Amino acid sequence: MATPSWLLLQRTVRFGDTDAAGVMHFHQLLRWCHEAYEESLEAFGVAPACVFPMAAADRPAGLEAPAVALPIVHCRADFRRPLVCGDPLLIHLEPLRLDPGSFEVRYRFQRVHSGEEPQDAALGLTRHLAIEPASRLRCSLPDPVQRWLEAAAVAAGGIRPA
Amino acid sequence: MATPSWLLLQRTVRFGDTDAAGVMHFHQLLRWCHEAYEESLEAFGVAPACVFPMAAADRPAGLEAPAVALPIVHCRADFRRPLVCGDPLLIHLEPLRLDPGSFEVRYRFQRVHSGEEPQDAALGLTRHLAIEPASRLRCSLPDPVQRWLEAAAVAAGGIRPA
Amino acid sequence: MATPSWLLLQRTVRFGDTDAAGVMHFHQLLRWCHEAYEESLEAFGVAPACVFPMAAADRPAGLEAPAVALPIVHCRADFRRPLVCGDPLLIHLEPLRLDPGSFEVRYRFQRVHSGEEPQDAALGLTRHLAIEPASRLRCSLPDPVQRWLEAAAVAAGGIRPA
Amino acid sequence: MATPSWLLLQRTVRFGDTDAAGVMHFHQLLRWCHEAYEESLEAFGVAPACVFPMAAADRPAGLEAPAVALPIVHCRADFRRPLVCGDPLLIHLEPLRLDPGSFEVRYRFQRVHSGEEPQDAALGLTRHLAIEPASRLRCSLPDPVQRWLEAAAVAAGGIRPA
Repeated sequence: MATPSWLLLQRTVRFGDTDAAGVMHFHQLLRWCHEAYEESLEAFGVAPACVFPMAAADRPAGLEAPAVALPIVHCRADFRRPLVCGDPLLIHLEPLRLDPGSFEVRYRFQRVHSGEEPQDAALGLTRHLAIEPASRLRCSLPDPVQRWLEAAAVAAGGIRPA
Repeated sequence: MATPSWLLLQRTVRFGDTDAAGVMHFHQLLRWCHEAYEESLEAFGVAPACVFPMAAADRPAGLEAPAVALPIVHCRADFRRPLVCGDPLLIHLEPLRLDPGSFEVRYRFQRVHSGEEPQDAALGLTRHLAIEPASRLRCSLPDPVQRWLEAAAVAAGGIRPA
Repeated sequence: MATPSWLLLQRTVRFGDTDAAGVMHFHQLLRWCHEAYEESLEAFGVAPACVFPMAAADRPAGLEAPAVALPIVHCRADFRRPLVCGDPLLIHLEPLRLDPGSFEVRYRFQRVHSGEEPQDAALGLTRHLAIEPASRLRCSLPDPVQRWLEAAAVAAGGIRPA
Repeated sequence: MATPSWLLLQRTVRFGDTDAAGVMHFHQLLRWCHEAYEESLEAFGVAPACVFPMAAADRPAGLEAPAVALPIVHCRADFRRPLVCGDPLLIHLEPLRLDPGSFEVRYRFQRVHSGEEPQDAALGLTRHLAIEPASRLRCSLPDPVQRWLEAAAVAAGGIRPA
């Protein structure tokens, strides 16, 4: 089974992502990870307003504020190859439910210059916990995120025989 | 004449672009401006390696380092409407040659929710000066940037009768 | 009258503030402006929780959420001299009340290497509007910000004879 | 032996570090880690120009560009407690030499409100590899960084009896 389009994203390294060594500055990768997670949810069909808090005055009419927050409790990244301004990247996402109230996303960044083999450039990981914002107590993952995780598990199952 | 696609870009407000007031944090807009300028050049056909410096070890084989740098000497932004996580944006670019050694780019950000009229959200401006990196003396704009500015002038001319 | 310490701040250019041209990436300056504004208010004696929103669960006990938000409606910056990693900066702030519901802050960044004359490096400006967060209607500036603006006007008066 | 001042730093959470959940956005912590590493080196007596690359035109007269780059090959962070705008932080650094050509720095962030016990808020880690910038081949750590690592080992030894 082919990877669904909402688990395979693209972005380009921009000038402001680099530092005076001429390459991507390391912590930008973690920003890319979170943006890829948001883009994947949206491409899968989950409206950002269902998952991410926003100013009350700007919430779409009729939509409640999300009852669950999904803060990151752990993140990490491994850097295999320097990335420079203009590098086109392919981002493979592997979301994984850990238990009823937490999940993690693994990100694999490949540099894909036309006419060349894709080259592994970096790996990232973010681990998220579901909590009730007011009490900060753990709770279950929100339904739309559950569905996204289940669909990702099905997609992964197609690649890795059980 | 319709606006060419390399002067009309899209992006989405992401969670990390917001602050605790629940809306886009102001200086992120200037980052979006520069990224739109880079994306426009690339969509027009100018390779990033022709304009932006990068680590020597990663420069594409056969490509010289750019002989001209284009630092920003002035920038500004006006904020008309708060932007929240998930807002889809349309970015209109108006690049303008100021003299043989400088140009500016005006950016107009519109929020474009489906089924609604586009709403003006913010304006940005960056002014760039051509310099020789080693001496920091002013020089002429690089050829690819000249061509991009000329094509933008032609495109604008089609909209605004002389 | 000497400039009070809460209008004269210091910071150092860090590696992540630079880009592949080897100098400070322009939009970082706007971040420094806002951080200097926050630091100035705090050094003057205004607790951040009185001015800036934060997660309800983490608000200091007994402190109400600020009834007024102070979004930036305009910002700009002029860049006079490149700044490199490690450059020690002096930041002069000039807060100015514009009307009962708005103010601006001007920022002057000087590079101050020991044994050398301070050199002007950049200017910044942020303009803020007082609004009620829920209605987004204009309102009066919060008292602590008023006091900070009045004290800044007195300090400026001591330098510039009326 | 008390922790030397160059291994115990301070910073304050700023508004732009937060997101619409009202708390510090996770990847800012990695930025703080690198800034703490730079500040620690500088406070120990290592000039930034000896370690970090910068624009050739701005290099202090008589100082060569660093012959060694120290890219990050791995980073991670654990988040224990949300941080809000204005939170004063204490940062404990533990630099550790791994082999002749690499080291890591562990960072412990504590929230230290006056009159309260310091509370652990987050842990960070960055792992750095020494390379020659042109060839990207591994090499030995630069002398100033070696001295910093040795002094840190001595300081740690004073606390933890062998």
